[in-house]
Order: sequence, then C-alpha cells, then structure tokens
Amino acid sequence: MLPQSRFAPLPPFAKPVPGGLTAPKGFKVAGVASGVKRKGKLDLAMLLSERPAVSAATFTSNAVAAAPVRLTRESSDCAHLQAVVVNAGNANAVTGKQGLADAARMRLLTANHLRLPVEQVAVCSTGLIGVHLPMEKIERGIAAAAAALPAGGDVAAAEDFAAAIRTTDKHAKTGALDVALPEGTVRLGFAAKGCGMISPNMATMLCFVTCDAAVSGDEWTTLLHTAVDRSFNRITVDGQESTNDTVLGFCNGASSVRPGTEGLAMLGEALDAALLALAVSIVADGEGSTRTMRLTVTGAKDQEGAEAVARAVANSPLVKTAFYGRDPNWGRIMQAIGQALGREGHTHLPAGIAYEDVVIVEEGHPADLDEDHTARLHEIMHQPEIDLTVALNGPGEEATVYFSDLTHAYVTLNAEYST
Amino acid sequence: MLPQSRFAPLPPFAKPVPGGLTAPKGFKVAGVASGVKRKGKLDLAMLLSERPAVSAATFTSNAVAAAPVRLTRESSDCAHLQAVVVNAGNANAVTGKQGLADAARMRLLTANHLRLPVEQVAVCSTGLIGVHLPMEKIERGIAAAAAALPAGGDVAAAEDFAAAIRTTDKHAKTGALDVALPEGTVRLGFAAKGCGMISPNMATMLCFVTCDAAVSGDEWTTLLHTAVDRSFNRITVDGQESTNDTVLGFCNGASSVRPGTEGLAMLGEALDAALLALAVSIVADGEGSTRTMRLTVTGAKDQEGAEAVARAVANSPLVKTAFYGRDPNWGRIMQAIGQALGREGHTHLPAGIAYEDVVIVEEGHPADLDEDHTARLHEIMHQPEIDLTVALNGPGEEATVYFSDLTHAYVTLNAEYST
Repeated sequence: MLPQSRFAPLPPFAKPVPGGLTAPKGFKVAGVASGVKRKGKLDLAMLLSERPAVSAATFTSNAVAAAPVRLTRESSDCAHLQAVVVNAGNANAVTGKQGLADAARMRLLTANHLRLPVEQVAVCSTGLIGVHLPMEKIERGIAAAAAALPAGGDVAAAEDFAAAIRTTDKHAKTGALDVALPEGTVRLGFAAKGCGMISPNMATMLCFVTCDAAVSGDEWTTLLHTAVDRSFNRITVDGQESTNDTVLGFCNGASSVRPGTEGLAMLGEALDAALLALAVSIVADGEGSTRTMRLTVTGAKDQEGAEAVARAVANSPLVKTAFYGRDPNWGRIMQAIGQALGREGHTHLPAGIAYEDVVIVEEGHPADLDEDHTARLHEIMHQPEIDLTVALNGPGEEATVYFSDLTHAYVTLNAEYST
Repeated sequence: MLPQSRFAPLPPFAKPVPGGLTAPKGFKVAGVASGVKRKGKLDLAMLLSERPAVSAATFTSNAVAAAPVRLTRESSDCAHLQAVVVNAGNANAVTGKQGLADAARMRLLTANHLRLPVEQVAVCSTGLIGVHLPMEKIERGIAAAAAALPAGGDVAAAEDFAAAIRTTDKHAKTGALDVALPEGTVRLGFAAKGCGMISPNMATMLCFVTCDAAVSGDEWTTLLHTAVDRSFNRITVDGQESTNDTVLGFCNGASSVRPGTEGLAMLGEALDAALLALAVSIVADGEGSTRTMRLTVTGAKDQEGAEAVARAVANSPLVKTAFYGRDPNWGRIMQAIGQALGREGHTHLPAGIAYEDVVIVEEGHPADLDEDHTARLHEIMHQPEIDLTVALNGPGEEATVYFSDLTHAYVTLNAEYST
C-alpha cells in the first residue's frame, strides 16, 4: 500500500487500492532474479504499457550522469515511451563507452522481446558505481522478464517489480490510487526506490508511475513535472545527488476517462499527494534515519534565498545529529541559517524558529519557555515526524524541504557498504 | 609545540621553540578558571602586548555573528589592538541586546584593568549558542586574569592561555617559531582552538598570533590575511561555519628587527606554514576524526568552479564515511564532482582521480589496477594523512581543501553535546 505521512494527506476523492503499477488498466510488469544480486534476490524489472502511451521523464542534474540516463535522455523518445527495463545492484555509472553500449544493448533486447521500436524503451540502473554490467546475467534476466510479462497484470507482479528495483531500501515503496474525477474514475500506480544519496533534485531514486486516464502528452508532462518538483525535489537525506535518478510516468488512456480542467486539477492533486507520500517515505527510510522533519522557511528575500536557507539547515550534520539526539538545539539551526545568509552577503537578520507549535526563537532571541512548553518540546522531539518553521524578516518568499536525522546507523551503513 | 603535518612542512629558516604566544618579546598572557566551565577548568584567557602593536583580524562570514564578533568588528580598532579577552564554554551568540551589552562589559572591564582605551581591546567567545553569559563569573575571571598577567610571560602562562580557549578540542593547539631573517631573528607565537563546526571560511575556530618583528600595519595585515586564506579558509570538518570564528594577530616590533622585502616574504612563509599546521591539526582533531585528507582539484574552468568541486567532495557525507571505512570508494568522489559540476550547468566532464601515487580514474573511466597498485591503495587508505588529486579537463584553475572523515564518534559527540 502507498506509504502514509501526515505531511502528505490524500485528497478525499483519492482512495488507496491494491495493485501498485498494475492497478491502472493496460499495464503489465515483471520482476525477476538475473543473478546480479546474490541469493536469488529479485533485481531486474520490466514494465510495458499494452497500448501506446504518453510519457514524461525527469532525470538527475548530476553532470556525471550514468549510461542509462544518458542513453534514455538523449536517444529515447521520452514523450512516447511504452516500456522500461530496470536493473538493481549495478548503476552502470562511470563505465565509459562500454557502459553506454551495455545500456543500449539492454534497450535493444527489451525492444526486440516486446516488439517495440528502441526509442519507446527506457533504461534505468541503480547500485554500485564504476563496475561494468555482467551482461550475460542481464541478458538472461531480460529474457526471463519479457517471458513473465504477459502474465504480469496482477498484484503479485507489481510487488515483484517493486522488490526488484530496491537496493538498500528497508521497505518496498509502492501503491495505487482510485481517483474519482467528475468524468469517471481513473487509477494511478506507483513504484519507487531510494534511501541514500538523496538530495533535493532527486538522488539515487527511481520512481515509476502508471496512469490509465486519457490525457494529452503536454497535460501529462505538466502533471508529472509539477508533482516531482513538489515531492522528490524537496527531500534530502545526505545532500548527495546521484548519477542515476529517474522518474518515468506512463499514461495510456485505457480507462477512456478524459478529464476536463477540473478533473485534470484533481488528478494532479492526487498525483502530488502520492509522490509526496513516496518522497517522504524515502526520507523516513533514509539510511539510518530515525525521524523525518518538514522544514518551511518563510520571509526570504527571494525563492533562491528561501531554498538556500532551507537546504543549509536540512543538510547540516550538526542539525541532523541534534535531531538524532532528540535535542531541540536551535542554536545549530541559527548557525546554519546564518551561514546561508552570510554567503549571500546578508548582515545580521533576526529570525523566528518554531518546533511544531512551540516558538523557540522570536525576533532573533531565545524565547523564555515555561514548564508546559518545555514538556511539549520534549514530546515533539520524540515524534516520528516533526514540523519546523523558520521565519526570516524579509519580503515573504517560502520554501519547504523534508529531511532525515544523521545517525550511527548512517555511518555504519556507508562506512561498510563497499566498492 | 607546534603541531606537525606532512602537508605543512616548515621552511628551513623557521625553527620550533617553546613558549607559545609568549615566545615573541613583549607579550603577557593568562588563562584562569572563571567557573563557567565545571570542575575548575580553565575557561578565560587574556593576552596583552606590553607596547603598542599593529594588529589584523579576520572574522566569520556567518550572518548570525556572535555578540563579541559584532562588537570587536564594529567598534574596536582592529588595526591597533593591544589586548584580547576570551571566554570558553559560552559563545554569547544569538543573545540579542543583552549579549552585546555583556560583550561590551567584558571589553570595558579588561580595558580598565589593563589601562587601555576600549578600542584597543578585542573580545572573543566560544561554546554554547543562545545562553546569556553568567557575568558575575566572567567579571571575577577577568579580574583574576588581569591580576595574573604581569607574571604571564613564560611557557606555563602560554599553556594556560591555550588550555583556557579550548572547548571540545582533544589537544591544545599552540607553538612558537624562531624565524631567522636576513635582518635578524624574530619570533612568532600561536594558540588556536577548534574541532567542530569547521568549514572553509573559518568555523568555530579561534586563533591568536603574536609576533615581535617591526613591520607596518599594512604589511602585517597582508601577511596575516594571506596566511588565513591558505590555511583556515581551506579546511572543513563538517561544512559548518560558526558564529564566532576569529583570527587575531598582534605584531609589536619588540625584537627591533625590521625585515626588508626578502625578510617579509620569509616571515610570511613561516606564518603560512604555521597556520597551515594549526589548521590541519584542527582537521585532525575534528570531532571524531580518524584521518586527514588533502584534496587538490586541478583543471577547473575558474577558481570558483575549482572551489565548488573541492568543497562538494570534502563535505560529502558519503565520501567522508568511505574514508572512515578505509574504502577507496572513488564512485562517491565522482558523484560529488558531478553534483557540483551539474549545479554550474556543465555536461559530462571526464575526470582523473588519484589517491597519492595511485591513479584510480583516468579520463573518466576506472583504471585497471594490478595487484601491486591494489596493495598500495590498501596501504594508503590506512595512512593518517592521505593526499588526493581530482583532475578536471578544463583550462587549469586549482583549489585545495583539507578535510576529515565522518565517524561514529562524530555522531556520538554531536548527538550528545546538548543545549
């Protein structure tokens, strides 16, 4: 089922349903074990829209983009994709010409099996950087996935797909929604992965979206890009943006429901909520993470300034370790704000800081907390999700980010996860 | 004695001598226990040049500057300081008008005790943010330090000073140099503190320099600013810039040695080496740090780009945890490079990466390492100091930063160090 978060409430007309990526009509998926991962773990996934679809894609802005990202971005038709092949365990990044050739071969084999032109197939990889793909295993995996695909229209297949794209994720991140539009009911399906190397601008993060509404390519692109901007581009685990991030959305019209202006807005609202729920679940599942913070910065001089302050706080290891220690150490928040403002040449700028409903800094000065407020603050620091507000005294631009704490487990995972 | 690092070799004409800040002629120092720290620990320090001196100062660029920084920067005569008072355990930061009044009172009391105009006294604080100074203790401490000062011209007093400015530092950071110039021998003395909230641009970091050469204010300012740019502005522990950073240098001419052009260059060289040795020791003593890396980025399109890439790598928690795990995980270095280049709108840019003499990435592709190189790499990863090179394929601008690893101990220290 779709992950839940108080930060991402579903609109009343959207209802979780089983089936993940296969809940919308006309999609088949498969997840198989190619042998790249050990112990027969699922590690290769495939998705097919049985009919032509409109599609939209967003990719990492990391200049060292992985081979599958470069191949798909530069030589697939990202507005008319009908299938994607995904492997986990090996990122096919920093692998030079051989890596590009391997990604192209993954695409060609998938296209041949599915009888599609190569331009309608996307390729994604996630896992270790700098190691060539074991192509024999990958090729056998692609054949097995293609063979499994015709039967892949049910809940079990969707779960296999979601499992096969995982790396260090503790939980599979998948779900589906019934969306009751004025024109009729359509469905959205989701599968995502990601938990480390996560930063605003989408880090080792893959997300696949299916939809059976009948919308135009432009409409679908707007819906998906808007939802990504409001979700995956607003999360950070460790400030690191990966070489492989990709969000792909397929919309095939199989429901025959054609939303009008109001219906489109409602579909967008449901998509926003679902991607935000998935994004927050990536933060909650962030490597070693024990809690998730939503930070809203208000009163900045401009959008860029609001973003800079929000990210400085969200990526500060001092702030993140304080949340791990359940310590409302607002001094570190002030320090991070000041560092971001200092870079932009601001002088001393008073700020307000609130943890949920407890105002802890007012006009740049520590507030005097009475016993009740101190007790409430203690309670807040033990919540799994904490809402933070930073008020600058500027004109009023805002930005929101979602971030995790920094823990011993993060260090353990990343000191031991080896090349 | 001055900390040692292979990254900061002393020039042959500079020789370590005992005495710290009091090695140069005409300086008196004291370190006393004011009671701000528990268990009678030294926590208040004072320095006086017995004769008028030229001075130079650099401060944090954090917009939320602490009260003592704002007071000293805005209302002391930083070119003609003759004394400084420092307290540890309380940063007097984010303390509003009361904080400014407290810092001004510290300065006034010190000036009165030392019979100096207030403009010739600087104030520094380090410690917790957001708590008002316990002024009664501070005032008693100032009186005690001023009373101890006349006897404070020896090695023991210099050690007390260095101890009194520490917070979470494991080691006192102090030392002195005999510098044999063509015109005669002069001396430099040093005391520094810092180990967390350390970033390029000087973070919770204080450094005091004494010198008995006879140089002009402009000459001394140039020497000190250049040395700070090449040392404290090139280190990062956790990317966090503090509210309180200050470097103060006093030069009183008491040696009567007036260096010419060559002598000035030599004095600058000795000062550069000493401040770099202190800066590297701050990294080595970084919270939880187990090793120190020097990273040089070459071939960038401009100075800003070189800096951005160097800092992105040095501040990446993934890179830092890999070094803690003794894992030559160059994929994470590539990822951080790509993220920095992506922000500037670069496209795929091949890069070379070397760990000491082992080239591990060439023209953007992993190098094939033979058994000898693999063994050598393993050896390198266990060194206390590791030299890294990142070669971009641009015109040739360079930048160097020094950074520490990210360890369980960092998380422990910062999750438990409480407000």
